[in-house]
Amino acid sequence: RRVHGENLLQLDKMESSAFSMGLDTHRIPMAMFRENRDKLVKSLKAAGFTSGLVVLNGGEQAHRYDTDTEILFRQESFFNYLFGVIESEFSGVVHIDEGKSVLFCPKLHEAYSVWQGEIKAPEFFKTRYEVEDVQFDFELGEYIKKHASATSPVFVLQGRNSDSGSTSVPAKFDGFDALESQGLINRTALHPVIAECRVIKSNKELDVLAYVGGVSSRAHVEVMRSIRPGMAEYQLESLFLHNVYTYGGCRHSAYTCICACGPNGAVLHYGHAAAPNTRILQAGDMALLDMGAEYACYCSDITCSYPVSGTFSPNQRLVYQTVLNAQRAVMENVRDGVSWPDMHRLATRTILAGLVEGGVLVGSVDQLVAAGLGPIFMPHGLGHFLGCDTHDVGGYLPGHPERLTEDGSSFGICKLRTARVLHAGMVITVEPGLYFMKTMMQKALANPTMAAHINKDRLSEFENFGGVRLEDVISITHEGFRNFSACPRTVDEVEAVMRGEQWPQQSDLAPW
Amino acid sequence: RRVHGENLLQLDKMESSAFSMGLDTHRIPMAMFRENRDKLVKSLKAAGFTSGLVVLNGGEQAHRYDTDTEILFRQESFFNYLFGVIESEFSGVVHIDEGKSVLFCPKLHEAYSVWQGEIKAPEFFKTRYEVEDVQFDFELGEYIKKHASATSPVFVLQGRNSDSGSTSVPAKFDGFDALESQGLINRTALHPVIAECRVIKSNKELDVLAYVGGVSSRAHVEVMRSIRPGMAEYQLESLFLHNVYTYGGCRHSAYTCICACGPNGAVLHYGHAAAPNTRILQAGDMALLDMGAEYACYCSDITCSYPVSGTFSPNQRLVYQTVLNAQRAVMENVRDGVSWPDMHRLATRTILAGLVEGGVLVGSVDQLVAAGLGPIFMPHGLGHFLGCDTHDVGGYLPGHPERLTEDGSSFGICKLRTARVLHAGMVITVEPGLYFMKTMMQKALANPTMAAHINKDRLSEFENFGGVRLEDVISITHEGFRNFSACPRTVDEVEAVMRGEQWPQQSDLAPW
Ligand SMILES: [Mn+2]
Ligand SMILES: [Mn+2]
Repeated sequence: RRVHGENLLQLDKMESSAFSMGLDTHRIPMAMFRENRDKLVKSLKAAGFTSGLVVLNGGEQAHRYDTDTEILFRQESFFNYLFGVIESEFSGVVHIDEGKSVLFCPKLHEAYSVWQGEIKAPEFFKTRYEVEDVQFDFELGEYIKKHASATSPVFVLQGRNSDSGSTSVPAKFDGFDALESQGLINRTALHPVIAECRVIKSNKELDVLAYVGGVSSRAHVEVMRSIRPGMAEYQLESLFLHNVYTYGGCRHSAYTCICACGPNGAVLHYGHAAAPNTRILQAGDMALLDMGAEYACYCSDITCSYPVSGTFSPNQRLVYQTVLNAQRAVMENVRDGVSWPDMHRLATRTILAGLVEGGVLVGSVDQLVAAGLGPIFMPHGLGHFLGCDTHDVGGYLPGHPERLTEDGSSFGICKLRTARVLHAGMVITVEPGLYFMKTMMQKALANPTMAAHINKDRLSEFENFGGVRLEDVISITHEGFRNFSACPRTVDEVEAVMRGEQWPQQSDLAPW
Repeated sequence: RRVHGENLLQLDKMESSAFSMGLDTHRIPMAMFRENRDKLVKSLKAAGFTSGLVVLNGGEQAHRYDTDTEILFRQESFFNYLFGVIESEFSGVVHIDEGKSVLFCPKLHEAYSVWQGEIKAPEFFKTRYEVEDVQFDFELGEYIKKHASATSPVFVLQGRNSDSGSTSVPAKFDGFDALESQGLINRTALHPVIAECRVIKSNKELDVLAYVGGVSSRAHVEVMRSIRPGMAEYQLESLFLHNVYTYGGCRHSAYTCICACGPNGAVLHYGHAAAPNTRILQAGDMALLDMGAEYACYCSDITCSYPVSGTFSPNQRLVYQTVLNAQRAVMENVRDGVSWPDMHRLATRTILAGLVEGGVLVGSVDQLVAAGLGPIFMPHGLGHFLGCDTHDVGGYLPGHPERLTEDGSSFGICKLRTARVLHAGMVITVEPGLYFMKTMMQKALANPTMAAHINKDRLSEFENFGGVRLEDVISITHEGFRNFSACPRTVDEVEAVMRGEQWPQQSDLAPW
């Protein structure tokens, strides 16, 4: 329910103590970020680092190549996690011993007030971000120099992101080299500790993730209701983005929308600039739509798959039900203490069983797994942590299981973005998929062990099918899990919503 | 009119000879880019560079910081101008003597086919982009080495963008340093020549700019019809982006939407991440909406201003009519051979005259100009070239007028993005504006010469007014100009459209 009124003007101006996009969008108390900082301090102390300074640079404004066209700024995720600062060019310091935090804002000149808006004093940011002090960025180096010592080293962020393989860039500040030559810079301790902090979400973070999941789910349903043969895939993207922005205040998407219809459903990350969602939908297409909004740098990641026509054909029903069975099997077993690779194996087995039932494969599931057919049909991992990044940090940290290669393939379980045991507070996607990829089909048919289990005639019916993926975001709780996605999932639900029935099926239409 | 049918599937797959987003979006023949290359070759020859290789790297896929989240790729503008390549990681060579062009595509590995889509052979790109040859990127260095010589140097792109102050990065390739030490690399000749090529648009480029201008205009009208008190500014942005994407196939905007309502209208580049369009609209607000779509890296840039209520108050009408008068004065005088600074001066004078008529300023226009009041109320330039960049290249090239500082201010005419004489084929924005900025008002009132001309009581009525800007994109023709924007402009037109009347006022409702 949209709320109007004078009092909302407070949100408009960004209340000092909360972030919100106004109207009825979610209000994030700045206490969320303070709790994140407190948790980091506690974790560093627990790891034996009882004193010193954590120093992070926030993100910088980027431009298109050499032009003055600004690329809409999106805060760096670690910095967002600790401070929730929406402005570029900030830095931050957290004192480990006292837990005190200081932000450093850029010193802007007069032209900013003409082009970008009112120049805010440090005092303004101190109130907005609820930190102990705010100084100008040119004071950062001096500040650190003053507080660094042999008993109070400087912790900067340098570590490898296990999804990208890229390394975070340690904070830069005046006097860095001098401090490093004195042995006062610690480049390695911070990354695994802060990444582990991000793995287990606080209740306030879960609230944000639930909000952005709900916003994304409603937009998915809107797209589901609007899809028609003759539309272009990008029109689905457009509608989704409009819906999450207008009704949810989500200006960014968590990732580029994958609107893969017909054969494109077999391309896992379709929708990028070189495959830009331009197919014209055909009545016989399955649509595989993987789209998630982002709010305050907290992500969502939801995939719905359904027939463009609104009614499942027998083969569409087979593939869809098989993937749904896989997702349900995981949901029935996922809980605190379960190993994530076990869930991946369960999903793969359920998918292979569905293909046997549908007459595409022949043999026992054990035989099919042994033959290596799992990664042929589901060449990606079952799911990934989600938070300030879509593929969130912490999947492979020291002291936790390493990446698996048991299926001997370069696809499938080795693509799992974590092999950890699940614990309450983790947020993870459950996204089994079943795809008919030309390269994978060829590979299977060329391999005698695999080919022996394939009904070639039956498989050939799926040559241009594309694929189905069903992706929900869940948080692990002590009791089981909580689902942040709320899209129609059963065949009956999907067909009902596509012909115009209500969703969610139970809804409080007059809540007073 | 939306066209459906089998034949559109050709567009879906991107016809070899044209770029289009399918449905009834604009079809850009690859010949447009060939003509651009031919023009460059001709211009280089005319400048005395009769032989050699032009080498450009296209843009690279970027990611959010250290994560694997891809930032939607947008081609680099010079590379787009010459080749129209939508994929990242390409390079291109143009032979000056024969005019022959060769593209270099990345060599992709198997995983690409699973995650990003079918791996296309060089032959595919040769047909799609209509170049003489396509090779793999690892062959680029060897290719250049083979063709470079004392009579056939290598031209790379290094020059300063006069809007950003940034320098384009010269192409990188294996063996660059060796060639440079042999004196075979020319870093300086290419930039001014190719920039000048981009200044004068071809007819095919004008078609694209007309298309994206029309798409943006219709979206502006849709927003104008939908605006209501109680909405958030970002909902206007959301609607605009949805409209240009769904109906125009425009996935990118040319720049971040400026949805500045009420006092925010006095912030020229409002809407960025630190001022993210979050005001809740009030009935008394003026809306200043500066939004432009982009199609195939060709930009639009349109500003509409109107009362949120749908009806101009007397003060709103005064400011609006003053800006409209300035825009009209320019339109009546702009043509091939006119100096752009003269148009800026005309606009400034018209705005000052309006303020005198409205009782805000006192004195003759000459006196007000002499007192320096022009940049107080219009602190930006009248307009800028537009093409593959919103602020397009070529504003200040050698051999053309340099930046002016005649008004002694650091705002106003010195902000003009070009001081050139206009010629047929140039595309430029006409965007006079009148703003009531706190810092500027304070500056004027603190300056006795200025303050003597100000009616302080009358001025104080505009303290929270914000501003008005009206921006159209025009191309200069031999006969006069062509307007690529088609938004309601007169007070009557705006009020009529806002109460639901038809736009454009003449329209072929049954065109058969
Ligand atoms: Mn996912
Ligand atoms: Mn402009």
